[in-house]
Amino acid sequence: MSTFAPVDPGFEERVRESFSRLTLMRTIGARLVKVAPGEVDIDMPVRDDLTQQHGYVAAGIVTAIVDTACGYAAMSLMPAGANVLTVEYKVNFMSPARGERLLAHGRVIKPGRALTVCAGEVYALGDAAPKAVAAMLGTMVAVRDTAEAPEARA
Amino acid sequence: MSTFAPVDPGFEERVRESFSRLTLMRTIGARLVKVAPGEVDIDMPVRDDLTQQHGYVAAGIVTAIVDTACGYAAMSLMPAGANVLTVEYKVNFMSPARGERLLAHGRVIKPGRALTVCAGEVYALGDAAPKAVAAMLGTMVAVRDTAEAPEARA
Amino acid sequence: MSTFAPVDPGFEERVRESFSRLTLMRTIGARLVKVAPGEVDIDMPVRDDLTQQHGYVAAGIVTAIVDTACGYAAMSLMPAGANVLTVEYKVNFMSPARGERLLAHGRVIKPGRALTVCAGEVYALGDAAPKAVAAMLGTMVAVRDTAEAPEARA
Amino acid sequence: MSTFAPVDPGFEERVRESFSRLTLMRTIGARLVKVAPGEVDIDMPVRDDLTQQHGYVAAGIVTAIVDTACGYAAMSLMPAGANVLTVEYKVNFMSPARGERLLAHGRVIKPGRALTVCAGEVYALGDAAPKAVAAMLGTMVAVRDTAEAPEARA
Repeated sequence: MSTFAPVDPGFEERVRESFSRLTLMRTIGARLVKVAPGEVDIDMPVRDDLTQQHGYVAAGIVTAIVDTACGYAAMSLMPAGANVLTVEYKVNFMSPARGERLLAHGRVIKPGRALTVCAGEVYALGDAAPKAVAAMLGTMVAVRDTAEAPEARA
Repeated sequence: MSTFAPVDPGFEERVRESFSRLTLMRTIGARLVKVAPGEVDIDMPVRDDLTQQHGYVAAGIVTAIVDTACGYAAMSLMPAGANVLTVEYKVNFMSPARGERLLAHGRVIKPGRALTVCAGEVYALGDAAPKAVAAMLGTMVAVRDTAEAPEARA
Repeated sequence: MSTFAPVDPGFEERVRESFSRLTLMRTIGARLVKVAPGEVDIDMPVRDDLTQQHGYVAAGIVTAIVDTACGYAAMSLMPAGANVLTVEYKVNFMSPARGERLLAHGRVIKPGRALTVCAGEVYALGDAAPKAVAAMLGTMVAVRDTAEAPEARA
Repeated sequence: MSTFAPVDPGFEERVRESFSRLTLMRTIGARLVKVAPGEVDIDMPVRDDLTQQHGYVAAGIVTAIVDTACGYAAMSLMPAGANVLTVEYKVNFMSPARGERLLAHGRVIKPGRALTVCAGEVYALGDAAPKAVAAMLGTMVAVRDTAEAPEARA
């Protein structure tokens, strides 16, 4: 369904290698389940230590997985040697993040040399039909992937 | 500096009690450091297990603390028996979230019976002068605080 | 393609009647071209008096038509007697708004009794293939449609 | 109150010259009333032809003036020869845009070589005390100001 052609044929390996260095994703038990050109899915189990006051997964964690899915969707279309940072995002919360697992889907809606616009959704999965939990619209920026930390995001 | 008068004189206790049930805040080591009418500060130590690929605190965690600060800033102006949910937020990331600690400041810019508009910032603290890491603008909604989980956010 | 069932069978008439009172839409030459349950399209000619410094239609006007399309998409699913106000929106600009016409598409992604979440896009139409100009994600609120002006939006 | 030092001492003239080419601002009667380093104010009379269904100034027009104020606030800190485009913005609407005039205030919260983060507010002015109508948080990008139209925003 993707209509984007990757510039770097090694995009999947590059995305998977970068994801493996995202300590937070390991901490929360999130896994990369799909890496296609301009599209990435991330899955995580619902866990009690990540909840807010009603017992649902907290907004920040829901945001973390859809931000990561969108960031890697953007990175999948970038040339080798490029890394990605989040410039900004906006997220709407639509239903409680509960059930057995959450699935975040991120996709590129406008690639660019510097800036990439992405959209994403998070779904709650369990016994019932998948339910949309959150929707995101955000902006990613390509940065050169160096050993040194980028001094600034912009 | 706050210009808001709380409707419920027990607002601070109510906020602190609700915060104590936010499991995610405990998981990431975040603490409530200020609860004033329409203004809440949250502090957290920078920790390796919450980072992204460059070793900075991940965007979702930065978002979690400023969302929580904004949510409780909104709740501080609500009547007793009201709880708060995040309708949506938008966050801009401005500098790497590194240093020793992060401080999130949330404040109400427009209270309302149902909807409250909030703004917030996250600062990185350490040896150097505090540096703005992120800025947020978002919308909170008052919900009745019942034992049952709210079926829908809206 | 819409999966929403309208509560009010007279939704289209209600939307068209409300649109006819939007003076700004008349001022900029915008027309309602589609009203379906949860989906509305608005078309406007590109006009020199609505441009920014590069000669493209200004961001505020691009926003006005997609906000209106989203607002009426939300209203199409509300009961008779309900009107709609924009709580907030976020818009990404992706390409210059030029060509012969702009087409704004608004759709509901999560209806609700009080709050409705909408997404929208604006396309530039002309000799070339339609090009995505902007993407929106926003929140609408239902208000009772009275003769008096609502004192507050929330 | 501004803490920013302009790189280009001719920033005000540059901003005023660019503003004079914004046809939409002329169409809606908006005027630049303040140009300081990192801060710009725009004033416009409330006019019947710019309203929505309740007789208030439409959200898109409110957005247009605060977007323009923020864009020029960003441009005021850019070097000579740089122009500015809006990457994205998020706006919350807080009170009806009515009264005699609207005043939009835009300010830089994080300048950058490529990307600048801005915040802004719109106030309704008239007989009563100024009332906050809208709040914005957005991202601007510097582009080289050439005679040719930029093919892409990013």
